[in-house]
Order: sequence, then C-alpha cells, then structure tokens
Amino acid sequence: MPDGYVNTYYQLTDISRRWTNLRDDHELYTAGHMMEAAVAYWQATGKDRLLKVMRRMADHIMSVIGPEEGKLHGYPGHEEIELALCKLYDVTGETKYLHLAEYFISERGREPNFFVQEQKRLGRDYQNAGAFGFAYGQHHLPLKDQETLEGHAVRALYLLCSAADVALRTGDETLKEACRRLYRNVTGRRMYITGGVGSSHIGEAFTFDYDLPGDTAYAETCASIALVFFCRRMLEIELLGDYADTMERALYNTCLAGMSLDMQRFFYVNPLSADPEASRRDDRKKHVLPVRPKWFGCACCPPNLARLLSSLALYAFSVRDRAVCLHLYVQGNFTLDTQNGPAALKVRTEYPRNGLVNLTLGMGDYDLLLHLPGWCKEYHLSRDGKKTHPPAENGYLKIEGPFMETEIILDMRLEPCRVYANERVREEIGKTALQRGPVVFCLEEKDNGPCLHQLSLSRNEPLIDDADPSLPGGMAIRAGGLRQKPASDELYTQTPGQKERATLTFIPYYAWANRGENEMAVWIREE
Amino acid sequence: MPDGYVNTYYQLTDISRRWTNLRDDHELYTAGHMMEAAVAYWQATGKDRLLKVMRRMADHIMSVIGPEEGKLHGYPGHEEIELALCKLYDVTGETKYLHLAEYFISERGREPNFFVQEQKRLGRDYQNAGAFGFAYGQHHLPLKDQETLEGHAVRALYLLCSAADVALRTGDETLKEACRRLYRNVTGRRMYITGGVGSSHIGEAFTFDYDLPGDTAYAETCASIALVFFCRRMLEIELLGDYADTMERALYNTCLAGMSLDMQRFFYVNPLSADPEASRRDDRKKHVLPVRPKWFGCACCPPNLARLLSSLALYAFSVRDRAVCLHLYVQGNFTLDTQNGPAALKVRTEYPRNGLVNLTLGMGDYDLLLHLPGWCKEYHLSRDGKKTHPPAENGYLKIEGPFMETEIILDMRLEPCRVYANERVREEIGKTALQRGPVVFCLEEKDNGPCLHQLSLSRNEPLIDDADPSLPGGMAIRAGGLRQKPASDELYTQTPGQKERATLTFIPYYAWANRGENEMAVWIREE
Repeated sequence: MPDGYVNTYYQLTDISRRWTNLRDDHELYTAGHMMEAAVAYWQATGKDRLLKVMRRMADHIMSVIGPEEGKLHGYPGHEEIELALCKLYDVTGETKYLHLAEYFISERGREPNFFVQEQKRLGRDYQNAGAFGFAYGQHHLPLKDQETLEGHAVRALYLLCSAADVALRTGDETLKEACRRLYRNVTGRRMYITGGVGSSHIGEAFTFDYDLPGDTAYAETCASIALVFFCRRMLEIELLGDYADTMERALYNTCLAGMSLDMQRFFYVNPLSADPEASRRDDRKKHVLPVRPKWFGCACCPPNLARLLSSLALYAFSVRDRAVCLHLYVQGNFTLDTQNGPAALKVRTEYPRNGLVNLTLGMGDYDLLLHLPGWCKEYHLSRDGKKTHPPAENGYLKIEGPFMETEIILDMRLEPCRVYANERVREEIGKTALQRGPVVFCLEEKDNGPCLHQLSLSRNEPLIDDADPSLPGGMAIRAGGLRQKPASDELYTQTPGQKERATLTFIPYYAWANRGENEMAVWIREE
Repeated sequence: MPDGYVNTYYQLTDISRRWTNLRDDHELYTAGHMMEAAVAYWQATGKDRLLKVMRRMADHIMSVIGPEEGKLHGYPGHEEIELALCKLYDVTGETKYLHLAEYFISERGREPNFFVQEQKRLGRDYQNAGAFGFAYGQHHLPLKDQETLEGHAVRALYLLCSAADVALRTGDETLKEACRRLYRNVTGRRMYITGGVGSSHIGEAFTFDYDLPGDTAYAETCASIALVFFCRRMLEIELLGDYADTMERALYNTCLAGMSLDMQRFFYVNPLSADPEASRRDDRKKHVLPVRPKWFGCACCPPNLARLLSSLALYAFSVRDRAVCLHLYVQGNFTLDTQNGPAALKVRTEYPRNGLVNLTLGMGDYDLLLHLPGWCKEYHLSRDGKKTHPPAENGYLKIEGPFMETEIILDMRLEPCRVYANERVREEIGKTALQRGPVVFCLEEKDNGPCLHQLSLSRNEPLIDDADPSLPGGMAIRAGGLRQKPASDELYTQTPGQKERATLTFIPYYAWANRGENEMAVWIREE
C-alpha cells in the first residue's frame, strides 16, 4: 500500500481492521517471517527488491506502534518479528529496527496490559486465567522479571531468541541474565529427554517444573526448532558447551522426528510414548498421532524444519574473535570469515552414527574450538597424526592455529548408555531411557511386540550396539529384558505376575513411526 | 398442567419447548427422579399425593412418546426414568409403566436414530463422532447388541439398572445376558480398584478396555453409586457373590470418598492419585480437585450419596425365596418380609474395621445366605457357639433355618494385602495397591512427605495393621519402604539415583483429602 503496509489477508478482506487485533491476528508475526525471507533472499542472491518492500513495512509499523504518544503501545501476540527486526538491523545498519525489537520486548508484560485494552476496544473482556491467560503470550510479566518460561512454547522461545538477539547487539546485561535464567529453567526442568518442550496440548504450552508426561506430551516440532534457534544465539553471547548440547538434543531427536525418513510426512506433536488405540479412543490423547500426517491446517512445522535443515551450517559453526567454533559435527566443505580472512574447513564424519570426526583445516591464522558433547566421557584427539590433549574449557577443546591443510581427528567413544530423569519427574521415576551419543532411542511394537509397558530392563543388562541397516535409522541397541506374563484374566488379583525373558530392540527416536501405526515408548521400567 | 405435565423449567419459561429436545434437556430424567421420590414418599409415609401427580405425568408421557404412530419414537438423553417407571409399576401394578420402560430401552440405538432426527428438527446437525457422539448417550447400538459399555458412565450404568429392572420383571433372557456381558466388561476391564468408573473427564466417559490412568481419572461419585444400584439389581436376577463384591468395592471406596469425614464437602471426581500443583497448573488435570468443594453447579453427587447411605439397608439385604441374603455387613436391627413371615435380624459389627460379624436371628422359618467376600481367604463360622462349615456356593454361605434367637458369628480374617492390576493396565504395571478387606488404601503427603512417586515398596516387606485413631479413617497400614534420593540437580543424568529407607503410612482411600490439600497416591511402585 502507499503507506508501506503489506499483508495479504487484510488487503484482500477488510483493510479497516488492520492493526486492530495484534493479539490474535498474527499481523506482526507474518510481517516478521516476510522480513526474514527478504533478508535471506538478499543474502543469497544480492537482490534487494523484497528487502525494500519489507523495510517500508517496518517503517510503516514504526509509524503505528511505538512508545510515542498517539501510537499503539503494543507488541505481537505471537513473537517472531523481533528477531526479524534484528536481522534487518544487521543488514541495513539502521538502529531504529533494533530499537523497535527492543521496544517490543520491554513493553511486553508492562502495566497497563496492552492486550486487555485492545480486547476491550474490540468489545471483549480478556481475563488472566487458565491456559490462555496472559502467560500464554508471555505478557503476564516483563521478560526481565520472569523466573520460569511460561505459556505457548514456540512463542516463549521466539521471545527468548529475540531477547538474546537484542542483548547481543545492545549489551543489555539484564536481558542476558534473563536469557540465562530462563534457559536454565527450560533445559533444567521443562524439557523432555528428546529436546521436546511444551508439555501440554492445551495452549501448546509449558505447564510446571518437572511435569513431563510422555503419553500426553505436546512437544511441538517448531518448539524444538525454536530451542535450537535460542541455543545458537546464546552461543554468540557466551561459548558454553551446554548450549550446543541442548542444540544437539533438540536437533537429533525431536526436530528430526518431526519428519518421516522419506521426508514426505510430518509430526506437529512429538510424544515420548504412543498407543494407537489411545489416540483413537481417548479424547485426552487424540492430539498424539501414531503416524505422521501429510500436512496440517496450521502448517508451521514442515517449512520451519526445512529451513533449519537447509541452513544447518549456520548452527554448526560460529566465528568468535580469532576462533572458528564447531558446535555440531556435520559433513561438508565450509568456508568461514574470520577476522584474519577466510577459513576453509572440510568435515568428514558419519556422526552421530559413530564418533569419528575428520577435519581438514585450510590455510589460515585462526584457532579452532571443538565442541566436546556433554555425553562424551572418553575421546582421542590428534593433529596431523600426533596425539594432542588440549584442556576442555566450557565444553570446547581449543586447538591453536595457524593451520595449513592440517588434519584434526576427533574420535569420541560412542556407546549406548542409560539415562535417568531427575527424581522429581513423576512420570519417569524407576525408568531409564537409552541414549547413544546425542541420539535418544525408543522401543517400537514392530520390533518388540504389543504392550510395550509390559517390558522392563534389568539394571545390569549389557546394551549391545547393532548397526542393522534393515531397521529405520539403521542403528539399533539390543538388550535382554523381561516381559510381564499374564497373571490371570482378573482385573485385580492378589497374585503378582511372573516375568519371562525377552530380547529388546531399540531404534533411534527420530526414526519411529516409519513402518505404519504402532506402539512406541522412550522410557522403560528398570528392575 | 391439566394434561398431567409437570416440569418447573418449561412451565416457568417457555412451555412451547416441552418435548422438543429429549437429548439435552433432562426432561425425562427429572421426571424420573420425581417419580422415584413419589414412590419413596408413599412407601415411607403412606401418603399418595405426589404419587398421583407423577402417575399423571407418566400417563402424559405415554400420550406423547411411544411406538404408536403420531408419537415421538424417542427416549431420554440421560437415562433414569426407566428405573423410576419400574418402581411405579411395582407400587401400582400397572404394566403400562413397565412397558414404557421396556420401550425406552429397546428403542434406544435403533435406526433411524431418534436424536439425529430430533436435532435436525432443532436445526442442528448431530454427527456420530468424538466423545460426544452417539455412544455418549448409549444410542450407538441397541443395548442388546452392545459388547462394551460406552459413553457417559452414569448414563450407561443407569441404562444397565433399567435393563436389569425390566429383565427381572419380564424375564427377558436376552436383556439379562446383555446385563451380564456389560457387567463383565465394566468390572473386568474398565473399573478402577476403588470401584470408580469412567476414565475420562471428556464426556465423563468410558474410554477403552484397560485404560485406567489414575492421575487424570474422572470416576464420578454418581457413577460408582450407579454401579452399586446395578449390582444390587443383578443380585435380584442371580445370587452371585461377585455382584456383592463389586458393590463393596464401589461403596467402601469411591462412594465414601465422595464425601468428607465431617460430611460437609463432596467430590465429583475421584482420582487415584492427586498432585495439587498439577491440578492448579495443568489444564489437563484441572478437573482433579485435591480437596472436596462445598457444592457443585451440577450437584448430582451429594444428594445421590445421601440417598444411597440413608437407604443402605436396601443394598445390604434381599429376600430370595425362603432365604434372607446378607450382601453387606452393616450394623443395625432389621426386619425383612420373607414368604414365611417377618425375619428380625440384629447385626453387630464394626466391619470393615474388622472382620467380626455377630448376628442374632429372630424366630422364624427361613434360611440365611451370608455373602463371603471375594477378598476373604480364611474365616470361621459358628452357630450358637458351635462351629459350622457350610459350603460356599456362588460366594454365599447357606445357614439353614428355622431360627430362634439364634446367634451366628462370622469371623473373617482381615489383614492387609497387596493387589496387582491386570498386566494390560498400562499405568499400573510394576505397581501394587494395598487393600484390607474391601477397603483400598492410599498414601498421603501428610504422612509420607511430598513427592509420593519417589516411594516404593519391596515385594517382601511386611504390612503392619495399625488402628491409629489419630489418622483419618482410624485405621492405617504401615510398611517399610524406599525413597528415591536426589541423584543430582541435572534433569537427565547417566547416574542412577540411590534409595533410602522410609516408613510408609497408608490410610483408607475413602479418608483422603480430609487434612487440607496434599498429594495422594493409591498405586505404589513395587521393587
């Protein structure tokens, strides 16, 4: 439009309704995605047509929303535009975009509550109660005062991404501290072992600390993608291996599970156990689908996943002062710009299938910081065939340059292990889950028969690695286990049931539901 | 009204809407309850004023609904009037009331579906899908063709009560067989150990076989009361101890738990585990209240419970040919009419606190059939001080008359025991629950500290009976147990946690939530 506004929905329906419902109508959210697209398009092609359009839209937004009198003192119902504005600032150098992002964050949750006023103007009474109260959109409190991450998980994590983006650019220490605090809350108390977040389908939301039920989980694919986004941004703020560990956990488990192995079908919801009968017959679990659908009415996850995977290098590497940092081990040839010129890296690895990473570092005067994953207890490192033992600092091994086609081999011992949830996690007490490197495993009915809950694993049973190409994911863990035998037909009996030996087969969680509808379970009782 | 119609709602609002929405408007349901009241009032006082009113209402209903052309071929959305009509038939001898009850049952679920047509007349499209589809009101199939009990649990069980009532009076064997089949389905696959039924709050409904999650349970008080009603009716059809066992299970656990010990507060929902934080913060569990409210918007349970308890003798006894049958052991002086005249029984017992029942049988020529509860493995029986060993047939001990102030002492060995759920019950695998006689026990936070899920019980740990008057319910079971110790602050760790000894105190389930808000759990992990 002449004033810079662009939004297909309102332009094709009723333009008088624009900017009347920031809470519900995703007007700023879609503008944000279009801005990100404009930046990406410009970066990829050098063409600035869309960028010009979206700068005009950003300028228009600033004429409507902002701290000045006469403007809406508002912010988006679904956060996203804040991180787009930071990208716009990065490519244009215009601080006004950064300031608008900052304003959206700092205004959010302040009194008087903007959305209450806005809904009042729309003739609606908006109360702060239930799953769709103020915390749903993170405007129950200013971010700086939030102690726990609340509400809609994707929104909450996009807000944290924005906060990290702004804090990195402005140096706002309070905002950084809020990011750290909320990162600790999410990853320390509100994250499934698969990196899934958002325990409840009601509001697609966080519930409370240590509430991580597997069978009714929501754990939206987009929420784990947002967690990857957030961790990557925190790695810009400070190089701590824990952020990269969380990125691995989310990426190799929930994110990948969001897509079928043939990349044709997608999960929105990523449970930690599935029972097709329950999904069919129990309305409390109908959101938990036992197979990936082809598409969704609200199809945010598939393109978000496509974007993440096709830009994976942006998450695998970063440059920090004179160092090139490797956070994720992905194969490929990469060139990074360091302060001393370009660094060419060749990475050869089958990680996480095995723990061997072969790096060839092109000529250049830079250091290399290698992420040593939190799960790794034993590793060998060599430089041009010679063993080297750099100390690990904050989860990174520092290998000093300069390099000249230098060969670095990182060999991490990767074997199946048992993981236990904190004893405050009600649902998983007395259970264990198997992990191999960053990959979480699960049982499927196809390999283990029905009624997976009847299986258990003895504490000392060895876990056997089995690279079985016939299984989805191509790697399996086998273990001897026990299966509860029927005690009687009675529903309740004084006679405890007997157990029989069973061979258990675990496949990677990301590979589940690729052989039709069947039961699945990540956690198994340990005896 | 002149035509016999009586219904305060429609008479005080819009009489033109009467009989337009049998599915939703509870018009026949409330008529049924008023008929039951009329019969009870007549039986208790000999006054027939209300009975006359409700006979006119029943006659009016017959002029509006029935198989004849021009009438509505309908039935109630919420069953209840069917059993009231059987009572009306009993006191008036008018077979037309029995036939109307029979019609309501046989028409239900037949094609074309009455409610679809009715809703169409109201301009609504009523589809058979989800928790509120046809099964919600048991009109998905004719009762005689139903293999599993479905839908709203109270409605479904009232339908079974009606079917048993009609079958008893008409001798309809197909209907009796449907009652037996659905009784087996409910009690063999869809009943909590507490006698609670209806696993899901969505539709207050049954879900599927062996789906009995404790923390999200619905298990409405009224549904267990309806189960007592149904069992008592089945005992008229055939004297099988299993019906009395189920009556005991529902009565001494979920029904009693429906009311606080001071009788001032009531539960609608009766979970098998409670966590106040989850009820407050997780919208999936907000129906699970950790303390009894004073009243409800839809207050069916409190008066239904009051009626059950104040007419308990009707459930404790029945007369069958020349025998007086005792199904429940409750203290009091009772007179029953047998075919050979009145039988006066004095029952002295503290059951289920202990297993001693002292009976004095007044003069008369009748037999006595004593229910031997299914949980009872050892007992002694004496007649006027002399041991006697009658065989137990179908769960009843037959003591032959005549009697002349005869003293019968039944001494059942009552000690705590462990109960296991069928291995197909997903949620309770690897767990045990404690029972003492018919009373199911539970752990409460008040006695055992927070995080009840961290407690477990070793298989061979002795269970100690402790009549502790300071505890709610006045009887406790103590056992040595284990408590999971914190392993680390990490959410996930490779280090399994350690355990420490703990003393566990179990109180009767019916006595839970009498000391303010706290955690509760019926099932405990067994190691």
